[in-house]
Amino acid sequence: MIYLDNNATTQVHPEVLDAMLPYLGEQCYNPSSGYRAGKRVKEVVEKAREQVAALIGADADEVYFTGCGTEANNSVLYAVARMAARSAEGKKGLRIVTSEIEHSSILRVCEDLETRGYIIEKVGVDAGGRLDLAAWKAAVEKPDVVLASVMWANNETGIIQPIAEACELAHAHGVVFHTDAIQAVGKAVVNVGDVAVDFLSLSGHKFHAPKGVGAFYKKGGLRFEPLLRGGGQEKGLRSGTENVASIVGLGKAAEIMHACLSNDEHAGVGELRDYLEQSLLSELDGVQVNGDLEHRTRNTSHISFQDCEAAGLLILLDEYGVACSAGSACMTGKQQPSHVQMAMGFSRQRANSSLRISLSIFTTREEVETAVQAIIKAVKKLRRVQGAGGVGPVVVYT
Amino acid sequence: MIYLDNNATTQVHPEVLDAMLPYLGEQCYNPSSGYRAGKRVKEVVEKAREQVAALIGADADEVYFTGCGTEANNSVLYAVARMAARSAEGKKGLRIVTSEIEHSSILRVCEDLETRGYIIEKVGVDAGGRLDLAAWKAAVEKPDVVLASVMWANNETGIIQPIAEACELAHAHGVVFHTDAIQAVGKAVVNVGDVAVDFLSLSGHKFHAPKGVGAFYKKGGLRFEPLLRGGGQEKGLRSGTENVASIVGLGKAAEIMHACLSNDEHAGVGELRDYLEQSLLSELDGVQVNGDLEHRTRNTSHISFQDCEAAGLLILLDEYGVACSAGSACMTGKQQPSHVQMAMGFSRQRANSSLRISLSIFTTREEVETAVQAIIKAVKKLRRVQGAGGVGPVVVYT
Repeated sequence: MIYLDNNATTQVHPEVLDAMLPYLGEQCYNPSSGYRAGKRVKEVVEKAREQVAALIGADADEVYFTGCGTEANNSVLYAVARMAARSAEGKKGLRIVTSEIEHSSILRVCEDLETRGYIIEKVGVDAGGRLDLAAWKAAVEKPDVVLASVMWANNETGIIQPIAEACELAHAHGVVFHTDAIQAVGKAVVNVGDVAVDFLSLSGHKFHAPKGVGAFYKKGGLRFEPLLRGGGQEKGLRSGTENVASIVGLGKAAEIMHACLSNDEHAGVGELRDYLEQSLLSELDGVQVNGDLEHRTRNTSHISFQDCEAAGLLILLDEYGVACSAGSACMTGKQQPSHVQMAMGFSRQRANSSLRISLSIFTTREEVETAVQAIIKAVKKLRRVQGAGGVGPVVVYT
Repeated sequence: MIYLDNNATTQVHPEVLDAMLPYLGEQCYNPSSGYRAGKRVKEVVEKAREQVAALIGADADEVYFTGCGTEANNSVLYAVARMAARSAEGKKGLRIVTSEIEHSSILRVCEDLETRGYIIEKVGVDAGGRLDLAAWKAAVEKPDVVLASVMWANNETGIIQPIAEACELAHAHGVVFHTDAIQAVGKAVVNVGDVAVDFLSLSGHKFHAPKGVGAFYKKGGLRFEPLLRGGGQEKGLRSGTENVASIVGLGKAAEIMHACLSNDEHAGVGELRDYLEQSLLSELDGVQVNGDLEHRTRNTSHISFQDCEAAGLLILLDEYGVACSAGSACMTGKQQPSHVQMAMGFSRQRANSSLRISLSIFTTREEVETAVQAIIKAVKKLRRVQGAGGVGPVVVYT
């Protein structure tokens, strides 16, 4: 199978797996144990912390490991919201500013905070999928804003957001700034020295570490309170026995991707992505590459095929041995255009005809060439079956 | 090294690792993906759910995977507390009843809930380390009790609690009952068909699955609200991309331990533990095995050595190649007797001279024999150095 769904999850890098195996084998010890074998395991956790810190330009003691990216996002939002509420002595109507295009692990938390009395303001994006900075400025300068959160790169479109500007505007009004950088870290340069965010979330399985491990960055000196309480691991900010093997894997993946980014090895990924897009544009009519082409992660293509239901396209592509995903999430019996595409002002039809194709450092030119032919074949077939208008026998895709 | 600290963490079973490897390799797909490769990965997650359910006598749809045992405990306590508060329309003074000897992932959550207006009542234990059922009854029959939570087996002593009775008393007063079964599942028979708890927590790395995966059981039909919000995985009750490899590992470990328990293969572990205790009792004076000997997990020995500081003992044992842990957690520059031993009424001296020795199905008779000799040597050496009274050059042990 040709795997072009790397924004959903990535293959564990073979060197990452090699680094993990000792800790799934003999080195099974608990890093909190006092004997030397336990302390050695503690040391490898700290080495991984340094590797992750190096990837994002942080100090090691600013990195806290979590069980996944969702936990990182949840932890930061709940912590900041709760600390602000306490500082405000329970005052209602504290504001949280975010964007229309966030991942569900931000949006669902915001909805929950709304039920607890916070006011959530979601700022829109332009047609290219980038944050509307004028609206952002207006939102963060309102009174009682306690947190601003914008993703670094969007998971569906790959569009890189104006994080430096958004962060600066938040800080200009004394607002704490968080970025969900889960789709950016390891794929694009993310450096908290250059963009002075207060909090940042990342997830291992988006850049060739295993699933089930993530981290958040907390700028040194900022207060925090844990979402998970117990044994006091991670300096008390995230309890739970350290997932040593996966943390080691996250560290190794960070080291590998840091080297890739430093050597501009992602340029190759970008070239393949561009080749894929150019091939489709030249061989098919009614193809549109979506979003601000100047500001994208190099691995992602969000692309619409006129008169083609993405749901059907995905089924055909699966048959042809190509795995990618729809720009629109298809749920519970009916196709719902994604909130990201709606925020970008796409018509329902365009939204429902979009694919997210996401490459990785492992994607080869041969795979892309084969995938291009498969996509062309699928689009042509579907257009024949469905006819113009793109409404045909849609098989629901969960 | 002879590893006798299996209550801290266990070695990943080789068959568990074998089961995991495909999902750290080629089968890297996201179970939420629509293509067939994703759906196959989804199926293995569901198979693991069945394996875990079988181990505890539950239905598969009553099992929800988490990132660790701490997350399972936190999730259940916060969910039940919050749902109760909402039902009570914000009324303060809702009560949560638990025990003095819970793990920190229960106690720290209770302390946090106390700051949010809940009243926490911690019921004591007898000298054998078992819950005081008369006090428990008195606690759960008070008005406004919304949750009762007792661990199935204690992590330090291995003492199995009277869960059936505690659960029945809670239910007799309409109180929801949770058990932290993290130190029991896989080592003792834990069956939610026999003991009708409402919620139960378990952790993979305590029974030969990897670190970084746990689960909670929620009796069918009970309401719940998630601690982690986002993509809606785990039927919306625990968001975050499923940690497929570790979930598969948890399932496999559950299957293996289920077979062990069914075939009474833990009897061998108990025999080795008893042999260890008998050897120490016969060859050393001033040795006391702690806790209710009739109600213990078979792998655990909690044992005191008169006139011996456990801190020093652990250092010597580490030198002799034996890893175990202290009955007392030694923290921040001074030895603090553990809350568990304090609840059992131990003197400070006895508490500070206790070791927790915990075996596993991998522990061999040769290892136990060697460990016995090492313990004897260490105790004798320390008694010579420290003299009667047990106060000597204590090296602080974090």
